[in-house]
Amino acid sequence: MPADHEVRRPDHAARRTALRNLLVENRVDALLVTDLVNIRYLTGFTGSNAALLVYSWDGSEDRTVICTDGRYATQVGEQVPDLRAEIARASARRILELAGEWQTGRVGFESHVVTVDQHRGFVEQGCGLQLVPAPGLVEQLRTVKDDYEVEQLRAACAAADSALASLLERGALRPGRTERQVARELEWLMFEHGAAAVAFETIVAAGANSAVPHHRPTDAVLAAGDFVKFDFGAVVNGYHSDMTRTLVLGEPAGWQREVYELVRASQRAGREALKPGAGCAEVDAAARSVIEDAGHGELFVHGLGHGVGLQIHEAPGIAKTGTGTLLGGMAVTVEPGVYFPGRGGVRIEDTLVVREGGPELLTLTTKELTVVD
Amino acid sequence: MPADHEVRRPDHAARRTALRNLLVENRVDALLVTDLVNIRYLTGFTGSNAALLVYSWDGSEDRTVICTDGRYATQVGEQVPDLRAEIARASARRILELAGEWQTGRVGFESHVVTVDQHRGFVEQGCGLQLVPAPGLVEQLRTVKDDYEVEQLRAACAAADSALASLLERGALRPGRTERQVARELEWLMFEHGAAAVAFETIVAAGANSAVPHHRPTDAVLAAGDFVKFDFGAVVNGYHSDMTRTLVLGEPAGWQREVYELVRASQRAGREALKPGAGCAEVDAAARSVIEDAGHGELFVHGLGHGVGLQIHEAPGIAKTGTGTLLGGMAVTVEPGVYFPGRGGVRIEDTLVVREGGPELLTLTTKELTVVD
Repeated sequence: MPADHEVRRPDHAARRTALRNLLVENRVDALLVTDLVNIRYLTGFTGSNAALLVYSWDGSEDRTVICTDGRYATQVGEQVPDLRAEIARASARRILELAGEWQTGRVGFESHVVTVDQHRGFVEQGCGLQLVPAPGLVEQLRTVKDDYEVEQLRAACAAADSALASLLERGALRPGRTERQVARELEWLMFEHGAAAVAFETIVAAGANSAVPHHRPTDAVLAAGDFVKFDFGAVVNGYHSDMTRTLVLGEPAGWQREVYELVRASQRAGREALKPGAGCAEVDAAARSVIEDAGHGELFVHGLGHGVGLQIHEAPGIAKTGTGTLLGGMAVTVEPGVYFPGRGGVRIEDTLVVREGGPELLTLTTKELTVVD
Repeated sequence: MPADHEVRRPDHAARRTALRNLLVENRVDALLVTDLVNIRYLTGFTGSNAALLVYSWDGSEDRTVICTDGRYATQVGEQVPDLRAEIARASARRILELAGEWQTGRVGFESHVVTVDQHRGFVEQGCGLQLVPAPGLVEQLRTVKDDYEVEQLRAACAAADSALASLLERGALRPGRTERQVARELEWLMFEHGAAAVAFETIVAAGANSAVPHHRPTDAVLAAGDFVKFDFGAVVNGYHSDMTRTLVLGEPAGWQREVYELVRASQRAGREALKPGAGCAEVDAAARSVIEDAGHGELFVHGLGHGVGLQIHEAPGIAKTGTGTLLGGMAVTVEPGVYFPGRGGVRIEDTLVVREGGPELLTLTTKELTVVD
């Protein structure tokens, strides 16, 4: 992509404008944002302590205030030059004081994040405010990625793709090495290919361990004939990639080819069901029915996928019980798996963006059964 | 240490027994534990979804139940062979159902962790239970480390010490390299020296960046005369080390020696104040007064230290406003800092265990001013 098409900076002000519309819909005068990922999304601030106040009507942003503590006094000025910043250790408390001084009526709070004890503190503080639960508003905005975000996701997925390709080219995947050695090398290669961090603890699961969906790498030694399942991701500018591939060391047995092709067909069905307007439960069913029809429904023990972005797991959840509907621009994973306890399992996972004309695939590593000799 | 003195396995049952005493003191019949770190501490389970029920009177543990979902069915059996395990996606809900069937009266919940929305769900579920806030009980137990835990902390601190020593031996710290390159290499070396993970994103802050307490490594290039501040840690078996050292590249200027020796004296005073029975605010004051007496109190912008263990930041907080009292066996950091904005700063931090005869130092890297030529 030519340099002049790159979207170099997130438009935080536009995101706050979108939030204001949600505040009006939800009939609150202002929102107290305390979730740090949501604060990063709305302002760019990445410190470990902050609170933010956004008014429904404050288009000039005179009363949009971020508060953090003394450790981040310099950083908040650099990262959030466009907003008023307050410095106080008890950041949410300071924000509520200001809202009280400004005689705000209904102040929404993130009831899905605020703990029972924090909430009691808010109530005891008083400030003449009416505190109203307003869960998930910023998360709702975050499900649909803007151009800047898709670019970061694309870069994160590319780092993961390149790292796995390098690992195989280097011959680093071979009998005799341990899961842990391979996992560490793959993580190192992600950094070499531009990751700022790993998206989560890399899963490398060989042989019977591949049947454990969330296996942590051990000193188990890779052997010829093993399935080797990789589930890993890179972080670029805060955005996470998520990909699973299952390879075979040496010549695959018949049952391995069979289960692999079954999961692959299920994963394809899931990807093809991704479109704006599709129900999340419907997408899950499209992939799950392929595995159920083969008589292995009970071996697919988790949901089909999840949103991905500033967090590795975000809304929407794509599962049997998923109640949401897909929108264009949502970034999600599709990751069916079939696990034979004690024997081995296969999962195949991509990160994709929902688009009108069919999903945009961000994880580009082949899904052909890869035999490592 | 000879092999037969090693404490190879945590005694989870003993920890649950200790918790039972706290439940009696707090007049609850049972505790619903939903914090995952607390569940790990009490059972050894490391999955990403679980709930645990512990009764105050259930010495035989017939009714001590852990619940997780299908992804972890195999893992929970392996990691928690001594307790009844239930499999349900809505783990806390299933635990409350059981508590209801067993006609439990007062069930404590972790009100410092449970969100307002989760709590509303618990209340709506009913089950004839009386839900009572019971914050921080397991965290209180976790402040005092048992022998197994101190051994893991020691190993984590040793991995960090060895990594920094290797970095310097390799000549990896020199003008021309970037903060990011050095940070990545240090993290790699921690893995080489036995870390399972890094404790947090490694801070390498050179020159003026060293004045930013929580700086994230950038592509800034190290230059002769720079302070280079390292704040980093390793994880071994879930336990975190935490250490800060500030080095100088080439011959230090007079002001650099001065601020270094000031922080070093402050840090020594903080360490010497660590003893069972000392108030946390008192320990903070012992270190802070050294910096205040030198006229730089306003440049020490954070607390003196914190507990460290299964999390990088745990109770107790050692700060001006700290209300707790130290107990023997607590693992804490001591980390004063003086930061001249735009110019440079120094922080020196150790991880130590509070002991009757004086603290046990776990981070053994020298605190002499290290000049890297």
